[in-house]
Amino acid sequence: MASNFETLRSDFPILDQQVNDERLVYLDNAATAQRPNQVVDALVHFYQHDNANVHRGVHTLAERATSQYEAARAKVQRFINAAKTDEIVFTKGTTDSLNLIASTYGEANIQAGDEIVISIMEHHSNLIPWQQLALRKHATLKYIELTATGELDMADAANKISDRTKIVSVTHASNVLGTVNPIKALARLAHQHGAVMIADGAQAAPHMPVDVQALDVDFYAFSGHKMLGPTGIGVLYGRENLLATMPPYQFGGEMIGFVHRDDSTWAELPWKFEAGTQNIAGAIGLGAAVDYLTQLGMDQVQQHEQQLVNYLLPKLIAMPGVTVYGPQDPQHHTGVIAFNIDGLHPHDAATALDMEGVAVRAGHHCAQPLMAALGLVATARASFYIYNTQADADQLLTSLQATKEFFEHGTV
Amino acid sequence: MASNFETLRSDFPILDQQVNDERLVYLDNAATAQRPNQVVDALVHFYQHDNANVHRGVHTLAERATSQYEAARAKVQRFINAAKTDEIVFTKGTTDSLNLIASTYGEANIQAGDEIVISIMEHHSNLIPWQQLALRKHATLKYIELTATGELDMADAANKISDRTKIVSVTHASNVLGTVNPIKALARLAHQHGAVMIADGAQAAPHMPVDVQALDVDFYAFSGHKMLGPTGIGVLYGRENLLATMPPYQFGGEMIGFVHRDDSTWAELPWKFEAGTQNIAGAIGLGAAVDYLTQLGMDQVQQHEQQLVNYLLPKLIAMPGVTVYGPQDPQHHTGVIAFNIDGLHPHDAATALDMEGVAVRAGHHCAQPLMAALGLVATARASFYIYNTQADADQLLTSLQATKEFFEHGTV
Repeated sequence: MASNFETLRSDFPILDQQVNDERLVYLDNAATAQRPNQVVDALVHFYQHDNANVHRGVHTLAERATSQYEAARAKVQRFINAAKTDEIVFTKGTTDSLNLIASTYGEANIQAGDEIVISIMEHHSNLIPWQQLALRKHATLKYIELTATGELDMADAANKISDRTKIVSVTHASNVLGTVNPIKALARLAHQHGAVMIADGAQAAPHMPVDVQALDVDFYAFSGHKMLGPTGIGVLYGRENLLATMPPYQFGGEMIGFVHRDDSTWAELPWKFEAGTQNIAGAIGLGAAVDYLTQLGMDQVQQHEQQLVNYLLPKLIAMPGVTVYGPQDPQHHTGVIAFNIDGLHPHDAATALDMEGVAVRAGHHCAQPLMAALGLVATARASFYIYNTQADADQLLTSLQATKEFFEHGTV
Repeated sequence: MASNFETLRSDFPILDQQVNDERLVYLDNAATAQRPNQVVDALVHFYQHDNANVHRGVHTLAERATSQYEAARAKVQRFINAAKTDEIVFTKGTTDSLNLIASTYGEANIQAGDEIVISIMEHHSNLIPWQQLALRKHATLKYIELTATGELDMADAANKISDRTKIVSVTHASNVLGTVNPIKALARLAHQHGAVMIADGAQAAPHMPVDVQALDVDFYAFSGHKMLGPTGIGVLYGRENLLATMPPYQFGGEMIGFVHRDDSTWAELPWKFEAGTQNIAGAIGLGAAVDYLTQLGMDQVQQHEQQLVNYLLPKLIAMPGVTVYGPQDPQHHTGVIAFNIDGLHPHDAATALDMEGVAVRAGHHCAQPLMAALGLVATARASFYIYNTQADADQLLTSLQATKEFFEHGTV
C-alpha cells in the first residue's frame, strides 16, 4: 500500500488509544469516520481567529468568515466536479439533502399516479422521504430488487423504470453490502424516460472519485462526517436548472430577495436553499477534509480500501461459521462488509469484538427493507477507511476467531 | 461589574487581535457570539478521544459518544427549565427549529380561515415560515404593531389575538431594537383563545435566564452559535403532548420504529425529530457552552449587559447626529442597539468603524418588514455580550465621533 497510508495514522490521535485494554481497531467508518488533526485544526483556527457570521457583515471578521465559507463551497465543487459553485448547497447532512429534494422538487413535481423508483438496498434516509411523498401524493413507490449476489438487478431496473417514473433515487454504494451501483447506467435509463436521477453518495463520496457530470446525475447527496469532516455538515449537489425552479425548503434569513408583509421573493442560488446561519465552521472543516482527501488522491483512497477488501474478504468468506452478505467479488465492493457469526446475535458479536478493541456495528443499519429482503433482522458490519491497515484486518479475523471459540466452548 | 467578567476575556483568544491596526472591539454578537476555549476544547476532545456515531453502536466509542450527546440534551433541558429531556430536540439552529414547527404543527393544524399572529419586529426566520404557511393554507397572517417607543403594542396584541388565532409566534427579544417582549403575557392571551404560543429565543436565551415553564410557552427556539456554542446546532423546545402528536419533519435513520416497503412507524421523542446523523460534536459543544454560561450565572450575564447598556445608551442617544432606534429605557433593553449616523449609509458607517477595529453590523438585519414599519432601509447595530467591557463601549463612542467628523469634514 502507498506509503502515505502507512504514515497518515499519526494525523488521527483518536486511533492511538486502548479500548478494554486492547489496541483500538476502528471499523465503524460507514457510521462515521474519524477526523485528522488538519480538520480539527481548521475548526480551532476559525473559532480562534476569524469567527463571524457570513454574508451579512462588512467588518473584517465577517469578510474573512465569508471568504472561507465560500472557498469551502468551491473546494466541494471541484471535489465532485460540479459545473458551478451555484450547484453546491450546504446542508446538515445526507438526510437533510435528500429530504430537501423530496420536500421541494418532489412536492412540486409528483402527482397522483406517478411512480418513484428506488432500490431495496436504500438506507432509510433515501427510502422514507420517497415512501412518505408517495403516500402523500397517491403515487407509487417501486423497488429495484437485488440479484442473488447482492448487486442491483439491472433487468429489474429496466422493468421498473418507465414513462410513469418521475424520480429515480438510488444509493451510489450500499451502507450494508458494500455494493457499488451503476449510477451512470441508471441515470441513462431515468433520463430516457424523462425522470430525474438522484444518487445517495453518503457511502461513495468519501471512498472513490465522484464526478457528478460524468455520472450525469441530477442530484447527489453526501455528508461531511463520513469523509473526515465535522458533524452537522452535508452537501446537496443539484443541476442549476433544477435548483433554480425549485421552491425553497426552509425560510429565514439570507435566503430572501425581498420580504413584504404578505409575501416574499427568494435569493439567488445557492443561498435560496441556505436559510439562517449555516454550519459555517462545519463547512470550513469540510473544506479541510476535502483538501486532505484531495492531497491523498481519491483514486489512491479507493485503491487502498480495495486492497484491504482483497485481503480480508476471501478470508472472511472462508471462515467456518461466518456468513458474509453482499457481493463476494472484491472488485465490486467498497470497504463495507456485512457478516454474521452462525448462531450468535450480531449485537453479541459486536460486544465481544469490542472486548478485543475492535469497533464494528451491529443492527439493521437503517436498512430494514433490505434486511427483510435478505431474510435477516440484523448483521454485524465492519467498514474500513484510509487509516485502516492490514493489521486491522488481521485483528478482526483473530478477534472473530476468538469470539467464535468463546461462544462455542465458553472459553477463549 | 463582576470580577468574573473582567477576567473571562482570556477565555476568548479571538478577541486578542488587531484589526486594521486597532484593537478588535467585537460588537456583532447578535449575528454570532465568540467561543471560549472551553467550548473549542470540548470539540477537540470529542474528536480526538470519543468520536463515533450515536445510538447505533454497542462499541465503546459509540457508547461514550451517545452518553455525551444525551448529557448535552440534559444540560439544555436544565438551562431552560424544561420538564423533560424528551422535550428538547436538537436542530441546526433557530431557523431550522421554527421551520420544523411551521412544517409539522402548522401544516397539520392550520386550516383555511385560521389566523396566525406574529409581530412586526420578527426576524425573517420567525416571519416567512408563517407567511408561507398562511399562503399555502389560505389562512391570515396578522402582525402585532409597535408602540412609538419601539415596544410591542399589547393593546394591539389583544385586538389581533382572537378565537380565530391558532398560532402566536413572537420573538422573546428583538434582534434589531433590543426590545424584550412580554412572552408570558402573550402566552396567556394565546392560551385564552386556544392558540399555541411560540417564542423565538435566538436573542434571549443567550442573554437572560429563560424558564419555559414559567413563560408557559408551547415551543421555544434558539441557536447554539449565539450563546458561545458551535455553528450548526440549535434547539427546539416543545411541550411533550404537542411534540407527541406532531408528524416527523424529516425522514431517515434513527427516527423510525419500523420501516416496511410501503409505510413506516416513528421513534419515541425526541428522536422522532432527529433524522439522520445529528451535529453530535455541535451538541456536545453546546453542552460546554451551557456549562460556561451556567457557571457565570444567567442573572449575572443579564446584569452585565444591562450595565453596559445603562452606560452606553444615554451617551449614544445624546450624541448629536446619531439616531438610536428602539426603547430608550435601558431597563427594557438587551445589549442590542440599532442606530444611524445622520446622512451616512449604515454600510459606510460600519466600514468606517471597522477601520477603527470596531465590528458592528449594518443592513436590514433580516427584518425588512420592521425596517419598512420604521421607515428605514437599514441601520447599524452594535450588540454586546459577556466579554464586552466599558472600554469597548467607550471605543464605539470614540470611533463614532471620529467617523462623524471624518464624513462631516473629510478628515479625522
